[in-house]
Amino acid sequence: MTLVLSNEDVESLLTMPECIAALESAYRELHAGDAVTRRRSDCMTSTGRDDGSVYGFKTMDGVVPGLGFSAVRLNSDIVTWPKVGNNRRRVKVPSAPGGRYVGLILLFSTANGEPLAMMPDGMVQRMRVGATNGLGAKCMAREDASDIGILGSGFQAVSQLQAICAVRKVKRIRCFSPSPENRTRFAAQMSEQLGVEVVPVSSTEDAIGGADVVMCSTNSIEAIFFQQWMEPGMHVSSIKMPEIDEAALKRADRVGLHFGHQSPDVVAARGVEAEDHRPGLGWQASRGFDFSKSPKLPEMLAGAAVGRKSDDEITCFINDLGLGLQFAAVAGVAWRKAKDAGVGHELPTDWFTETVHP
Amino acid sequence: MTLVLSNEDVESLLTMPECIAALESAYRELHAGDAVTRRRSDCMTSTGRDDGSVYGFKTMDGVVPGLGFSAVRLNSDIVTWPKVGNNRRRVKVPSAPGGRYVGLILLFSTANGEPLAMMPDGMVQRMRVGATNGLGAKCMAREDASDIGILGSGFQAVSQLQAICAVRKVKRIRCFSPSPENRTRFAAQMSEQLGVEVVPVSSTEDAIGGADVVMCSTNSIEAIFFQQWMEPGMHVSSIKMPEIDEAALKRADRVGLHFGHQSPDVVAARGVEAEDHRPGLGWQASRGFDFSKSPKLPEMLAGAAVGRKSDDEITCFINDLGLGLQFAAVAGVAWRKAKDAGVGHELPTDWFTETVHP
Repeated sequence: MTLVLSNEDVESLLTMPECIAALESAYRELHAGDAVTRRRSDCMTSTGRDDGSVYGFKTMDGVVPGLGFSAVRLNSDIVTWPKVGNNRRRVKVPSAPGGRYVGLILLFSTANGEPLAMMPDGMVQRMRVGATNGLGAKCMAREDASDIGILGSGFQAVSQLQAICAVRKVKRIRCFSPSPENRTRFAAQMSEQLGVEVVPVSSTEDAIGGADVVMCSTNSIEAIFFQQWMEPGMHVSSIKMPEIDEAALKRADRVGLHFGHQSPDVVAARGVEAEDHRPGLGWQASRGFDFSKSPKLPEMLAGAAVGRKSDDEITCFINDLGLGLQFAAVAGVAWRKAKDAGVGHELPTDWFTETVHP
Repeated sequence: MTLVLSNEDVESLLTMPECIAALESAYRELHAGDAVTRRRSDCMTSTGRDDGSVYGFKTMDGVVPGLGFSAVRLNSDIVTWPKVGNNRRRVKVPSAPGGRYVGLILLFSTANGEPLAMMPDGMVQRMRVGATNGLGAKCMAREDASDIGILGSGFQAVSQLQAICAVRKVKRIRCFSPSPENRTRFAAQMSEQLGVEVVPVSSTEDAIGGADVVMCSTNSIEAIFFQQWMEPGMHVSSIKMPEIDEAALKRADRVGLHFGHQSPDVVAARGVEAEDHRPGLGWQASRGFDFSKSPKLPEMLAGAAVGRKSDDEITCFINDLGLGLQFAAVAGVAWRKAKDAGVGHELPTDWFTETVHP
């Protein structure tokens, strides 16, 4: 049977330590050359609407034979780029029936090819981004890092805090985001969930002054963290290329990258220009920085590159571009636990396989 | 509701003229720059078996906003390369439960992003390959072509003949394939289906001597059609890069290509080498031929390039590499007809959409 899981199923099944363990295993296999991952691609056309929106069809694939999984993750999105506060954001419009977003993961077995599961991408997406930055901090933050500042209080901020708490003994967390309601609600919710006090504060400076680890977790396609805020021993992470300003990257002693794909392959229709592909924004941010010496996460995890050499170094970790491999690893954990727990809708595997040699 | 269709559903719903019309529309949109398609990618790793097999995870995407569809087509395959008769073939091992193959198409709306349908890829694959070579013949074969020779009697040969009959007034078809049983059965079946006599013959020469159109329709990753068989006015088509020998291409007056992608993007694990990516075989065949002047099918359909200039020219059409765009167009026809006819399993669209902004 092929399992269909919901985001609620996935959220109830996945724990951050399991996701971190599966990803670490997948990255080691990738570093050894036994696992593979295909760079994300974005096909972009008009939507036919008159709101400046773009239709984006995004896919990424990965195969992790050691874990026994392959996956494609895809998004079928109506995308806009509104200005919110001081920063331009990439915002998807939930246009599918019921006002919903469209993102899917299809999971397969590398042993016999069979389709194992289908699930929305949201919760796996959040866990894999968090786990990746957790592994980045494991390799690059001070061993005794305990004071965390986070910029952002949205969907991704949840797993950023889960992940840092999984790899370091965290004692205090401060959170800034522009909306007082959002940061207050987020702080209360995360304090309870993590068992660590999360304090909402009213400025970036109040969140990060004296912090050992600063986690950027926003939708911004422009810089939100600047060099004047850097202090010796600090580790700064981002979930998107542009969050950490180029001058800050230059001031850091070491800038680690996730895998180094940096930007997606774009296939765009005539006249379609995505804001986050424009010079200086989004994927094109920090093009003046020389990433050629940046250690990659798989290298650091495999011991082939060093993340931090001393307690007073300033380090950055940029989660530069997601990988299909991450979805294979994390969705694989969700599938295995769902099978064990009897969770999800079972559909006949014959619906998704065939007798003809295509 | 999101529809799940079977190959049997798709086969009963699709007609060749409809597939040809949808593809022609999609190619014109592609030529205009409004539709887009992402080159096929093959991720390849070991399977862990000791039979020299490779695990292949293949994907291709396309977006056709004028038709309102996007699609990803994927295959999760155990692949081997046995020698059959004189030629090496690419053969997939049906290893999923029940001894089945794994190929899927997911179809989406470009207007609102929603997942419209899922279906195995087999029947759409066959129809789009046939329709593409039909369009190639429409642009490149003589107007009065009526005598057809086909090499091969397998799964793909069916739609090759349907397609040539849809674009030319066909009077006679001869078929050669190495197995007498196969060619005899195929000829009887197709004679009945097409209302045109299909004659099984016992050699390549008997099939193609005096033919106006020769259609290669095999799994071979080596050449099966050679220059000494070419005659003035002949059109020769292939469904794979290597079928027409390089010397034959050089002798032709004009060689048309499908879209010119020629070979897939390959991401291969350490030590994994696919036979059809080796020099001189499969995708690497005919590398000594200069394709830079070859007209592409979308150009010919849009009138931006000429397929044939006179009745005595020798033309070739190479269906060089499939496109995600084809699956969007043809699966779109299947979905629309299935909706109208009430065919397929309906699943809640909410299962494949989400409330979180991933």
